[in-house]
Amino acid sequence: MNDSMLSSRLIENAVAEISRLPGIGRKTALRLALHLLRQDPSETEKLCESLIHFRREICFCSLCHNLSDTPVCSICADPHRDRAMICVVESVKEVMSLENTRQYNGLYHVLGGIISPMDGIGPDNLTLDDLEKKVAEQKPEEIILALSATMEGDTTNFYIYRRLKDYRVRITTLARGVAIGDELEYADRITLGRSLMNRQPFVMES
Amino acid sequence: MNDSMLSSRLIENAVAEISRLPGIGRKTALRLALHLLRQDPSETEKLCESLIHFRREICFCSLCHNLSDTPVCSICADPHRDRAMICVVESVKEVMSLENTRQYNGLYHVLGGIISPMDGIGPDNLTLDDLEKKVAEQKPEEIILALSATMEGDTTNFYIYRRLKDYRVRITTLARGVAIGDELEYADRITLGRSLMNRQPFVMES
Repeated sequence: MNDSMLSSRLIENAVAEISRLPGIGRKTALRLALHLLRQDPSETEKLCESLIHFRREICFCSLCHNLSDTPVCSICADPHRDRAMICVVESVKEVMSLENTRQYNGLYHVLGGIISPMDGIGPDNLTLDDLEKKVAEQKPEEIILALSATMEGDTTNFYIYRRLKDYRVRITTLARGVAIGDELEYADRITLGRSLMNRQPFVMES
Repeated sequence: MNDSMLSSRLIENAVAEISRLPGIGRKTALRLALHLLRQDPSETEKLCESLIHFRREICFCSLCHNLSDTPVCSICADPHRDRAMICVVESVKEVMSLENTRQYNGLYHVLGGIISPMDGIGPDNLTLDDLEKKVAEQKPEEIILALSATMEGDTTNFYIYRRLKDYRVRITTLARGVAIGDELEYADRITLGRSLMNRQPFVMES
């Protein structure tokens, strides 16, 4: 499969294009192309139509920088959302993950990345000025830092903390500890130490 | 991720369409959609164009039933191919695998499946009449049965053998034995027994 060409130029082109997607090699691309071939041509057209439509029309929310169909996203436009809380996340993927918990009813602020000197991403590449402006003007009560528990996440948390600490806003971060379902035996030393330090009063869950 | 909707209808549609492809779940579909978003819109259009073009224009070779850009495929049309040998395969995937060995210079015959009563595929669903006609009219010297080493493959081999045994044609099948690179210790009993039975004179490879 590796370097050889397929007998048909049409399938060769299709496979080459599909295998440019991340995580899809030539074998998978060929399997997908042959799958499309077994389906009605209208199925392929439907797939392509929705992709082109999606790529052309989608935009970023002018308030929170989340993906949106409209200039202001459905979360920012929702009158039932608590405007006193802003959850700071790295990307739209984290907005989706947090929305799926159904535990959060505030607003979001998507940074568009995380401070990572190794990847050449500094504070200026992120929507940090916009975040500070939002805090200054809208005066939210709480900023929840929901970044990854990595060195880059910690760096970004610290940077945001320094920029916002003089405003009257409570800055919190996600709880870190042993993941639910994890066996203690296999928890790493640092996580275990942290969750011991931040132990909580025991309550019976109803 | 499971049952919940994404915040944007456009990305929701795109993810739904992508995740209808085999082996691609919602998480992977979302990752692919976000990848397209990071690329220029022209990349998405190029991908879709090649897929639609492929699906609309591709046809099956009228001689060997292989995928083809033209009514007669490039293999059947090649004057340097040995027309005395016909290799019988299940699908276009096997044509590609065999071509990639660069060890075969004959023609192919794609059955379009394999006899499998469990899946409701009988001899009438395959291009077997066409194969018999080809043997009767073109009088090839050899038919190579290159089907999977499974029960369905063996059944199909046996069925083809019965239909062709009265013609003057040599019927052969692929050698079965220990795969190259396999450790003998882990070879299964049946494969090992068969490769002992069909042992070959030892020759030094040059």
